Formats: sequence, structure tokens, C-alpha cells
Amino acid sequence: MISGKNYIGFKTSSEGDNTMNSVTAEHGKSLNEVFYAATEDEVNTAVSKASSAFNTYSKLSGTKKASFLDAIATEMEVIREELINRASLESGLPKGRFQGEHGRTTSQLRLFASLLRDGNWVEAVIDTALPDRVPFPRPDLRKMLTAVGPVVVFGASNFPLAFSTAGGDTASALASGCPVIVKSHNSHLGVNDLVAGAINRAAKNTNMPDGVFSSLNDNGFEVGKKLVLHEDVKSVAFTGSFNGGKALYNLAQTRKEPIPVFAEMGSVNPVVLLENKLQEDPISLATTYAGSITLGVGQFCTNPGLLIGIKSEELTVFKQSLSTQLNAVESGIMLNEQIAQNYIDSRLKTLTEKDVLLTTKDNSQTGLATLATTSGKNFIDNPNLHHEIFGPFSILVECENQAELTQVINALEGQLTGTIMGTLDDLNSNGDIINLLEQKVGRLIFNAAPTGVEVCHAMNHGGPYPATTDSRFTSVGTSAIKRFVRPICYQDMPNSLLPEELKNENKLNLSRKINGQITMAIIN
Amino acid sequence: MISGKNYIGFKTSSEGDNTMNSVTAEHGKSLNEVFYAATEDEVNTAVSKASSAFNTYSKLSGTKKASFLDAIATEMEVIREELINRASLESGLPKGRFQGEHGRTTSQLRLFASLLRDGNWVEAVIDTALPDRVPFPRPDLRKMLTAVGPVVVFGASNFPLAFSTAGGDTASALASGCPVIVKSHNSHLGVNDLVAGAINRAAKNTNMPDGVFSSLNDNGFEVGKKLVLHEDVKSVAFTGSFNGGKALYNLAQTRKEPIPVFAEMGSVNPVVLLENKLQEDPISLATTYAGSITLGVGQFCTNPGLLIGIKSEELTVFKQSLSTQLNAVESGIMLNEQIAQNYIDSRLKTLTEKDVLLTTKDNSQTGLATLATTSGKNFIDNPNLHHEIFGPFSILVECENQAELTQVINALEGQLTGTIMGTLDDLNSNGDIINLLEQKVGRLIFNAAPTGVEVCHAMNHGGPYPATTDSRFTSVGTSAIKRFVRPICYQDMPNSLLPEELKNENKLNLSRKINGQITMAIIN
Repeated sequence: MISGKNYIGFKTSSEGDNTMNSVTAEHGKSLNEVFYAATEDEVNTAVSKASSAFNTYSKLSGTKKASFLDAIATEMEVIREELINRASLESGLPKGRFQGEHGRTTSQLRLFASLLRDGNWVEAVIDTALPDRVPFPRPDLRKMLTAVGPVVVFGASNFPLAFSTAGGDTASALASGCPVIVKSHNSHLGVNDLVAGAINRAAKNTNMPDGVFSSLNDNGFEVGKKLVLHEDVKSVAFTGSFNGGKALYNLAQTRKEPIPVFAEMGSVNPVVLLENKLQEDPISLATTYAGSITLGVGQFCTNPGLLIGIKSEELTVFKQSLSTQLNAVESGIMLNEQIAQNYIDSRLKTLTEKDVLLTTKDNSQTGLATLATTSGKNFIDNPNLHHEIFGPFSILVECENQAELTQVINALEGQLTGTIMGTLDDLNSNGDIINLLEQKVGRLIFNAAPTGVEVCHAMNHGGPYPATTDSRFTSVGTSAIKRFVRPICYQDMPNSLLPEELKNENKLNLSRKINGQITMAIIN
Repeated sequence: MISGKNYIGFKTSSEGDNTMNSVTAEHGKSLNEVFYAATEDEVNTAVSKASSAFNTYSKLSGTKKASFLDAIATEMEVIREELINRASLESGLPKGRFQGEHGRTTSQLRLFASLLRDGNWVEAVIDTALPDRVPFPRPDLRKMLTAVGPVVVFGASNFPLAFSTAGGDTASALASGCPVIVKSHNSHLGVNDLVAGAINRAAKNTNMPDGVFSSLNDNGFEVGKKLVLHEDVKSVAFTGSFNGGKALYNLAQTRKEPIPVFAEMGSVNPVVLLENKLQEDPISLATTYAGSITLGVGQFCTNPGLLIGIKSEELTVFKQSLSTQLNAVESGIMLNEQIAQNYIDSRLKTLTEKDVLLTTKDNSQTGLATLATTSGKNFIDNPNLHHEIFGPFSILVECENQAELTQVINALEGQLTGTIMGTLDDLNSNGDIINLLEQKVGRLIFNAAPTGVEVCHAMNHGGPYPATTDSRFTSVGTSAIKRFVRPICYQDMPNSLLPEELKNENKLNLSRKINGQITMAIIN
């Protein structure tokens, strides 16, 4: 049941008088429930509870934390239908999409649970004492990763389940041993409320400390700001726009103790179409990209917003076919009114830039699938064409030759993904292009659309700035846990006091790096 | 031979007319050689060479990069005597100290070489394709760490060899595949020049690309600023004062693309003296700390600047014995005039704070070993007493009881190290103290002085802000390499094009995480 309240640890709370409604994406219609914005006191209580929960929660065994994550997944399954219906209502995306996203979210939680049971993620490293070494003995040194403290998570509008309240950021932060405070996203207040309730039921059922999870609402920026500036908050995760992410990042730098803000801010995800690949079958290439550009009304951070090729007959065939196929896609409902209006505005702004040609239908409807074209030279000269347009929009850059194509790639800023569509011959003769693109991206994709982001160990969903604020970390996949930990080294700590992961007896059967060798050995 | 010039890749260069001398630490006497500050053109050329070297250097095999690091160590051994003499002259520290530091520096280079030959540091993770998975197939995803680009290193005054030109920052950055540009430290221009020459001879002998290493001089801050702000520089490493490190960190945030600044800014390294340990042998405890406080004239970032205990007869004995032993140590020569003057000033400032008592000799000589005492309450109330005083200075906080001791630890900011001196009984009954201190530090030490920093796999020389600007990384030990890399994920890349570390055949015999299991298996 939707409470409309803030979740402050195990308590729901509605102390303030600043309220709001959730609205449907389709007609902007207010839904029944009243949601309470958190007051300053509520913010402080949530952080204070998180701080005190941190002391016990961060020291729990991996198995215990895993049972908590599994229980969240189970609680989310209990309310599966309600979540799917509400997510569809609030986001305008079809229920079918949320059947998938619900499964992705619960699997993600369980994947982190399995990572905790496995235990190796702490990267245990041991250098044993060398008491007889000359001129100085070596002490016993043991290092592992440990949680940093309370984490604030800002949910993403485009993934009400998988990247929000119990999404990848929350799952990885909880897995690391950090309590989480979610600032709910206003585009899905109802979904957030339902999931927050599920998380707290799971926390109670598995005997987690009060304060391990909180969720706060707001109809402005104050709650988010207070959270980021609170001295007991130690890290922030955000998925959304460049402006939003950069503002939080800058805010965190003004603190007495600056803290990391992991902002995943999207990108244009360049796709390079190589010669032979285009020649083979330009129409099926166009079909792949028509699907990828319009998936979820183009509202994915890995949406292919930039296609790059060298002028040829086949590139023209590709362009025409892609335009025709995009024209056949009905305009989709966008996530919220602001995103819908931004799409209209930024699409129009780009289309009025010099030497940009529209090749698809021209009308002012929002969510309209759009392809534009421009020359390589124009793209290189005009940085306004390098920005992401959030929605089903892509720009095809038609280059004169290989040199210009190289310059186009060289002109790109950091990206989440870069894609090469090429035959093996193409790839073998374009090593320089591949190396150059690799320097710009977090994930280099071959012969597939970039829109799928697999939740697994090898995923990297990150990339050089401005795709993210920290290219050294991923926000998807098990490595996302590394954002919320730091190494701690114990020198000559008595074995009985060491964390289980570092004890001589290796009861957790970890693969540890002992004196430079990876081994599951016990230390005698 | 000392050239006095800037090293811009393989060329020495002295285009400017801004010159300086190196001075002896002991009498501030100008030495013969003239050193040239780098011009703006020289800065740009060095970065441009580094950028172009990056394209080839970052793709070299671990074995080739290892041969370069080994060759640097060998070249440093060829000029060992000259380096030791010059380092002693420029720093005021005895030659014996540099015999040790020279060995530490060359071992460090060779340790990174062995890490590269081992190869596992890239953290290869592979999730193989699941073409038959429903509803969607899984692509083949392979991830590893890759170099970020040119790195700027600011040398440390207190380690002319081990933390400067070819020190830990340079060794780890070069190991990661990043070219390095050193901004030489003005306290050891001669040592820097000799080492820069050695590095470039090693680079030529092992066929490294021109620009893999440069070294630039300056008598102000302009060269450093230009380097940090240059758009092709991707990371910065610094060891020194809080003010210096924070200024560079802030500067890097003003860039269009903010970049990481790994600043290790020192700390007071609190030492908690527990009851039974004090009772056992207060005098030998005092001897340990008299040695640690005065080692290298107290000019270590892990110098124990804060001792904390509960009032007792034995704490008084400890205090008296430590004072007596410190009084017996002759004033040392400090690293340079500015550090010497800062020591006089900040020592005096602290001694004039309310309720701070000097227990050692009172004179105005610099480098004078000093112990002061204050109450727990006064320490908690006065943050001016929490700052590091760089030199042989320590303050003993005498607490009324356990609760006050806890509050003292709670009041501490982030630290490189925290030390507990305690018997096993002490440790067993002070779990809360240990957990609290752990949250504040990068390394938790038991029953030893903090001043030794072992170069090994398990070392963590880092810690929460303001000890460093990024608690997630260490600047000493093999993990220091992680500062200069980011993950890159290859999706469905043809096996023939993958980096050797990720190819099916696993020719490098790496332990890779394949589908969640750590294994040395080949992929069929």
C-alpha cells in the first residue's frame, strides 16, 4: 500500500506540510495519494539513523547481508503486479517493459547476494610477517575493502525499478555494507513508496538495524541538497542528466570533506558504420538501429544518438531505410512533462543548427522518432551537435573520407559506449579507429546496438567524463560495489580480532593474494 | 651529470630565461648548477609528447613495460653514490638514510615490474556469450583495467628518491601504461635531474616511445598549474601539505573535464595507549615513540603527532620518560628553509594555545624534538590542536576516562594511520575504540610505531579526507597502480582483436573471473 510518507528507517513519517501528488505520464493527471516532502528534521533523523546503523550493518557477515538482499527481492515479488501497474501508470511505458524490468531488479539484488556469499569481492590481500628480514623485519599486513558509510541514492526517471529505490545503486551500496538513503524520484513517487515499504519489511524480517534504509520525498531540490551536504553522508549515486549530475558533483566539492558523487549522466553513444558492413546489408542495419533508437521511447542512457559513416551508396540506402522505419514508429509517451518538453525543445534547437537536415517526419509532437543528418566537417565544427538529446533522436554524420571520420571520433567527448559495425575485414583494417574510440568509451561494442546493458560481472556501465563523473567505476554489474568501499589495512592485528576474511583459517574459502600469490591456502 | 635543463621526452631543453639554483638544506647555500624553469611552450610540448606516447605505450605488453621499469632501477644503481651524496646535500638528511631510500626506490620499481610480468593486476573478468538464453541472448563481455592517459607527478620534499622523480607515483603510473610528467621539487632539483636522466636512458635503451617521461622545473607555481589544467593530462599525483594538495585538487575541479588528483596530505597519526600496555612497561613504550617521533627529523607523513591515553601513574611515567628521551635528541636539519620556519611557527602557535603544556626543552631552534600535553576536554574543544605539525612534534592528550578517550577519537578527522598500543586483554575489552579508530584511518596498526611504510601488496597508504583526497586508493604498494586505470569492457569483440589478457587462449596464464568463477582456464 502506498503510504505517501517518508520512510525513516522502520518508521514512516510525515511531519511537514509540504505535499505533492504523483501524476500519470500520459495525461499529467494527478493520482489520489498525497506525498509528504521531508522536513529538515526528517532528513537529519534519516542520516543519524543511517550513521548508527552503519556501525553494526557494515560489520555483518556477507551471508547476513545476502539474506537481506534476497528478502528485498522476495518482498518485491509479493507486490509484483502492483509495482508493474503503478510503474506503467507513472512512466507511460508499457506493462510488458516492467515485467522485464522487475525481473532485472530482483535478479540484480540476488546477484549481489551471491557476490556476498562468494565473499571474494573484498579483495583480501595478505603479506605475512618476515620477523628475520634484515635490516628491518616486515610486519604482518592484511588488507581488504570495507564500507565507507551512509550512501545517498538519487533514483532515475527512466528505470523506476532497476535504477531507482531498490535498483543497482541501492543494491550495490547495501551489498558493500553501507546504509542507503534514497531521495525518491518525483516521476514515480508511488513506485518508490511501494519499494521502500518492501525494503523495510525485508530489513525487519532479516533483523537488519533500524536505519539501514530510508526514503525521502521532495517537490524541489532542498532535501537532495541537504543530504549531499550532510557531514555524515559519505557517498552519492545519481543517474540522470548532465546538469543534474554535475550540480550534485559540484555541491559535494563545497563540503568541508568533499565526497565522491558517482553521476552517470548519459551520452550520445557513437556508432561507427564501416564500409563492408554497410555493403553487406544496409537495410537490416537500419532495422537494428530503428529498433534501438526507439526502444523505450529512446529514453535509455545507451541510446544510439550518433551514427557515423563514410559517404557511399549504401550509407544513403541505410539513411533512407532508417528514416522510413522511424517514420513508421508511433510517437511514444515520454516519462514526464519536463522530459517531453525538453525533447521538443532540444530536437528543434538541433534541427535549426546550420547544415543539419531532418530526414524523418516533421511535426511538433513529443516522443517523435527523429533522424537528422549532417556533414563530418559541420559536426567537427559545431559542438552543439555533440550533446545528448534524451529521446528517440539520432544524428547521422556523413563523412567525406576516412580522415574525416577519424576527426569526428577525435572530436567526441567521453561516452558510456561506442559501437563498431564492421566485418572482420573492416575491423582488421581500422585498428586506429578502434583504438581511438576505445579511449573515449567505457564499453566498446561490436556489431550490436548499444541499448542492452547486461547485469553481470564483466559489465562496465561507465566511461570518461562527461558520460560519468568517475570513469574508474561502473554503475551496472557486480563491480558497482567498488564505488562504496575503501581499502583498510590491518598491521599486526591479532588473528582473533581480524575480520573473518583475513583470518589465518580462511573459513570463507576465499581466493586471497598471499605474499603475491593468489591462493585459497590457510595460513599456519 | 646534472644538466639543469628540463627533460622533454628524450630532449633536454632550456628555452626560458627564468633560472634558479638548488640550495643545501643545512645552510641554504646556493649550489653551482643553474636550473631552467620550463616555459609555456615547453609545458605544452611535454604534454603533447606524452599524449602521443600514450597511444603506443599503453598498448605495450606487461613484459615490455616491466623491462623499462627494471632498466630505470639499473640506471639508478649506476649513479647510486652520486644520488646519495646529492640527496643528502639537498635534504640535510644523512647519507645512511639515502642508502635505505635508494634501495627502497629500486625495489619499488622492480616490484611493479614483477606485477606487470605476473599480469593479474588488470583484473580480467569474462562473461561468455549465452546465445540461447531467453528472452534475450547474452553477448560476450570481457573487461579489464586500462591506462587513463598522461599523469602529472609532483615530487615530495621528504622523499627525494622514493616519492619523487622515480618514486612510487611515477613507478605505478608507468606500470599502469600512463606516460608521466614530473614537476620537479625545488628542494632537490639536482636529485631530480639525475633521476630524470636515468629514466630517459632507460626509456631509450628499452625502446620506449619518446615522451613516456618528462621532467619540468619551476621556481613558482605556474608550471604545475599549467600541467594540471592541460586538457590532455588525465590524472595527478601529489604528496605534500594539505594546502598544496587541496589547491591542486580544487584546480582540477575547475577544468572542463575534472580529473582526479591523488593528494596524500599527511595526518597526525593518532596513537592510543591502552591501560595494561602502559602498565607493563611505560619506559620502553616511551623509547619506541621517542625514536618514531624524531626519525628523519619527524618529517614523515606517518609521524606520530598525537598520543592519547587515560590518566594514570604509568601515563605520567611514560610522559616523563618520553620528554627526557626527546630532550636528549639533537635538533635536526630540516628539509628546506620554508619547512624549518613553518616548524618554528606552528610549534609556537600550538604551544600558545590554551591549556597546552610543553614538557620538553624550550628554545626557538628549528627541528627541535617537542612533546606537549593537553587534556581530553581541551583537545575536543580546540580543533587547532588537531592539525599536523610537520616535524618532530607530538602532543599527548591525557583523558579523564574511557568516555573522554572515545570522544577524543570521535573528534578526529581522517588519518593515514591509527595505532593501538595494547595487550590482548586491552584489545579484547576495547572493541568499540578499535572499530571507531578503524573508521578514521587507512591503516590500523597494533603495537608498533606508525613510521614504517612497507612497500608490498597489502599496504594501504591512504585514508579518509583530509589525509588524502581519495580514500579509495593507496599511494604505496602495488595497489597504487589502480589510481591510473579505468575499466574498459569489450562486447563481442573478435578474439583476434582482444588484448592478450582477455583472449580465449589465456597465454599469459592469468587467473581470470570467468562467469563468476576465478580460474586459469582457457576458453574453448
